[in-house]
Amino acid sequence: MRVVGIRRQRAGVAVAELSPDGHDVRVLASLEDFWADSAGHLARRERGPAMAASSVEFVPPVLPDARVFCIGLNYLKHVAEGSFSDQELPEHPTLFARWTQSLTVDGAEVAVPAGEDGLDWEGEVVAWVGAPLVEATPEEALAAVVGYSTFNDLTSRRAQKRTSQWTLGKNGGDSGPLGPLVPAAEVGDLRDGLRVVTRVNGRIVQDGNTDEMVYGVGETLAHISHTITLRPGDLLATGTPAGVGYARTPPWLLKPGDVVEVEVERLGRLRNTVVSRETRSSSARERGASTR
Amino acid sequence: MRVVGIRRQRAGVAVAELSPDGHDVRVLASLEDFWADSAGHLARRERGPAMAASSVEFVPPVLPDARVFCIGLNYLKHVAEGSFSDQELPEHPTLFARWTQSLTVDGAEVAVPAGEDGLDWEGEVVAWVGAPLVEATPEEALAAVVGYSTFNDLTSRRAQKRTSQWTLGKNGGDSGPLGPLVPAAEVGDLRDGLRVVTRVNGRIVQDGNTDEMVYGVGETLAHISHTITLRPGDLLATGTPAGVGYARTPPWLLKPGDVVEVEVERLGRLRNTVVSRETRSSSARERGASTR
Repeated sequence: MRVVGIRRQRAGVAVAELSPDGHDVRVLASLEDFWADSAGHLARRERGPAMAASSVEFVPPVLPDARVFCIGLNYLKHVAEGSFSDQELPEHPTLFARWTQSLTVDGAEVAVPAGEDGLDWEGEVVAWVGAPLVEATPEEALAAVVGYSTFNDLTSRRAQKRTSQWTLGKNGGDSGPLGPLVPAAEVGDLRDGLRVVTRVNGRIVQDGNTDEMVYGVGETLAHISHTITLRPGDLLATGTPAGVGYARTPPWLLKPGDVVEVEVERLGRLRNTVVSRETRSSSARERGASTR
Repeated sequence: MRVVGIRRQRAGVAVAELSPDGHDVRVLASLEDFWADSAGHLARRERGPAMAASSVEFVPPVLPDARVFCIGLNYLKHVAEGSFSDQELPEHPTLFARWTQSLTVDGAEVAVPAGEDGLDWEGEVVAWVGAPLVEATPEEALAAVVGYSTFNDLTSRRAQKRTSQWTLGKNGGDSGPLGPLVPAAEVGDLRDGLRVVTRVNGRIVQDGNTDEMVYGVGETLAHISHTITLRPGDLLATGTPAGVGYARTPPWLLKPGDVVEVEVERLGRLRNTVVSRETRSSSARERGASTR
């Protein structure tokens, strides 16, 4: 089952099931109602009438105030290739923040911000939290995960590396394409291994497997929950495997016109096109107006 | 003029003016309508009927998906006292992220998370963005600031310092008390100097002035806008002066029962009480339910 967000005139964002052929959607609940009981809505399988997918606007099924926790270094081969390779792996996951405004969907165009030579790809898996977590055990935290999605953590490397904190380079507009939510029951344990493949213009640039992850989903969410109360709708981006562009010799970054795809076993494929920064101003303003 | 958020049954959050004596509030607009034209709403001074302040619940007048950009090191004496003192000041501001879920109001109780010896204080000034900014100049960016507020960037130092990224230690529940918005026209330029004083149980622990800031509000927002499109309702926390607790010998952190106050000239005073972590679970769950 693939669960998506759709924006409706007046009625706000709804959460819907996308049909297996991708031709139509059926509404499960409003965004707020869905996250108030996500496991229940997925289990009950009550659906609205079918609407043509071509007639709706897709958006991430994400609450505006959800937190997107991102693990920075979670695959040993990616640690080894990057600028933290000379440091010991910390005992706890390195977590950085994305705001939900940086998220977008399959098919969206992503602009290269000013001052960047291009955008870097980071294919990965996102876990969705379905229940509140306070000082949870790893087992409790993993049991609270309601689904997973394919994610591309597109990065503005110059902005990321300019100071010690990565915030700016990780929150560009539309820099976080996110696929449909696939219920956890259909995915199983990431420790059992899902292949994560990133392609640029059809060529494979990352080919990893979630069984290489250092910090598991349950232990990372449990760790977070000791400082911050996790709420339904919060997300955890689990980190990217080796093969990113900036660490190559010479570096390889996405330029306007490039097509980047992330494909995760059982979760599906995301495909996005990179565009020039000239498009950023107008599209961002239009979208800002329509969101609010 | 002091502008606050109030939560209403069914009708959602509204933005309201707090009377000079603090006894009553008058609604300006719904949260979304206010941020669609914040300068206009402040200028027109159309107000709803007076309601007793004691009859309403105060919340930050913040859009759920707003971004809280925070400058990490912006007062030279604070840089010199902290763990970055051996490094050169970067050419650009060090920016970290808060999610809006970490924000709260004057009077709120703030719990010390598990694994922390206490919470550290960081009194500072927040600027509110009132217009979209894309690749703006510092002058354009400063002109887009619609107001300022007193802020306390309460920090879980262990979680902050555990890895290279500060995210976890900067986003504890209720760890960001935020005062009313004061219109920019009543505040003037922070470069001209506003005194920032933090007190713990009545004793002054920070006594700085915004004329010591390294990176100005306009230049920092302009810098951000080259990578990320700023939108109305986004916030910039401008950093704290010297005198935080963890850098002292011996370290001094806030314990349950302590009262912390931040007072900024022209912006007013925030007063919050620290409580034990045992209160976190139940209160967070209640609040989560009422928010959604």
